[in-house]
Amino acid sequence: MTRPDARAIQDYILKAFPTPDGEPEIVIEEVSASAARLRMPSKSWHLRPGATVSGPTQMALADSAAWCLLMHNLGFSAASSVTSNLNMSFLSRPASVDLIAHAQLLKLGKRLSVSEVRLHSEGHEQPVAHATVTYAVIFAKEGGP
Amino acid sequence: MTRPDARAIQDYILKAFPTPDGEPEIVIEEVSASAARLRMPSKSWHLRPGATVSGPTQMALADSAAWCLLMHNLGFSAASSVTSNLNMSFLSRPASVDLIAHAQLLKLGKRLSVSEVRLHSEGHEQPVAHATVTYAVIFAKEGGP
Amino acid sequence: MTRPDARAIQDYILKAFPTPDGEPEIVIEEVSASAARLRMPSKSWHLRPGATVSGPTQMALADSAAWCLLMHNLGFSAASSVTSNLNMSFLSRPASVDLIAHAQLLKLGKRLSVSEVRLHSEGHEQPVAHATVTYAVIFAKEGGP
Amino acid sequence: MTRPDARAIQDYILKAFPTPDGEPEIVIEEVSASAARLRMPSKSWHLRPGATVSGPTQMALADSAAWCLLMHNLGFSAASSVTSNLNMSFLSRPASVDLIAHAQLLKLGKRLSVSEVRLHSEGHEQPVAHATVTYAVIFAKEGGP
Repeated sequence: MTRPDARAIQDYILKAFPTPDGEPEIVIEEVSASAARLRMPSKSWHLRPGATVSGPTQMALADSAAWCLLMHNLGFSAASSVTSNLNMSFLSRPASVDLIAHAQLLKLGKRLSVSEVRLHSEGHEQPVAHATVTYAVIFAKEGGP
Repeated sequence: MTRPDARAIQDYILKAFPTPDGEPEIVIEEVSASAARLRMPSKSWHLRPGATVSGPTQMALADSAAWCLLMHNLGFSAASSVTSNLNMSFLSRPASVDLIAHAQLLKLGKRLSVSEVRLHSEGHEQPVAHATVTYAVIFAKEGGP
Repeated sequence: MTRPDARAIQDYILKAFPTPDGEPEIVIEEVSASAARLRMPSKSWHLRPGATVSGPTQMALADSAAWCLLMHNLGFSAASSVTSNLNMSFLSRPASVDLIAHAQLLKLGKRLSVSEVRLHSEGHEQPVAHATVTYAVIFAKEGGP
Repeated sequence: MTRPDARAIQDYILKAFPTPDGEPEIVIEEVSASAARLRMPSKSWHLRPGATVSGPTQMALADSAAWCLLMHNLGFSAASSVTSNLNMSFLSRPASVDLIAHAQLLKLGKRLSVSEVRLHSEGHEQPVAHATVTYAVIFAKEGGP
């Protein structure tokens, strides 16, 4: 299997969940066997009341980062893997800029994959949130979609 | 202080986050000192690809349920309290019906409040998700908004 | 398969981890398909400095309660199942009395089992801790020990 | 305030919880404002059945590492701070060697402190467990012990 790179994973998501303008809501900047970096542009959420990133949005970004690591390591036949646990600590209020996620793979098992994800506002060093994301690994049956 | 009831909390949310049609995305059905029941109507998410409730949407519902318990117990002067931790286990795929949240207050401290929340699809007994939600209690300064 | 009852599970543990006086450190009081109640007698920890139950001891009790539910439902061929995640919120300081655990099974899957556990000091209503415990279900190979 | 160093924190623990032979069960190897490294010698648990480190023991080590970071940053007047949440993912079975904890401070707030802790068996690169530990910061009243 060739490991899907950042662009291939990005294309896969956009095909599954098309956006009105064809621009991704979350940008996959880098992915390797052990780490990934994703960016959520501030325009995705900037105009909301409060002008900050909601908790669920932060959780969605952390979850996406963990899923990217899984795709890179296992390929799209594992695309239907599901999050079994997400634990998130909210540390400080995000600034009104892009939100960056750094994910690290802690374990890639046959049944469970565990990643650690830190979120920080671009240009700020202190993390705004920290997540541990566990995926139940599910492979599509052969000859499947 | 009079404890805000379900309707008062609902109105407070709709005023802060108006919806296009004036209908709430999440309906607060009941709230008492120790428990709350909320409902997310399926129309809120029914037309999405997959026709199921995403993980972040489930987390948003659990978070709202915990916040309602806090408002009922402490009043709106604690409205700016923030989630400090949310741990969610995803148990099974929600059905294409309304999603119900049952929240129970585990602790109401001066600084931290902890609630347990179970989500289940209407008409189904098995929970689809279970969350523990911790809030850092923050009171607005007197004379504040 | 006959479901092992509280006594059978208790005997199994004592055989695997004998105690000096033959008395169990943790007493399994009741177990059903959906719930279990365990007791940690205060004599097990009463003489320590501080005369309270340490965090790790509370975690051990919660973990045992989740394991009992698994044994009752799946039998001892699943005895080598391992905890994959334990999330615990410490709510208040336990009193110097027996510690009681009430566990509820949230999910019994082929690969993962999730239980919720509340701990409270005997005679006190408020919980001292709340845990969510996830087990990776592992069956011994046939003809195994 | 002078920040207590590794030796000072070690002495503080041994005075509060003396061991039979005066040797610490957990060795604090390094502590700085942002990170700490602790070691649990295998002799502490080597003779148990199974010859591996139990889950609660791993949780105790992670908790100690987070507490050390707090002591270094805030001094012993914060010694009565309490763990409010501990979330631990168990990744693989520890080997029969010393267990090492690397802790990183994610947040040091006035009320809450959050640390991330990875455990690995000495000489092994892959982590055996990952924890997020939240402390409620509590300062002793002035003139107190």
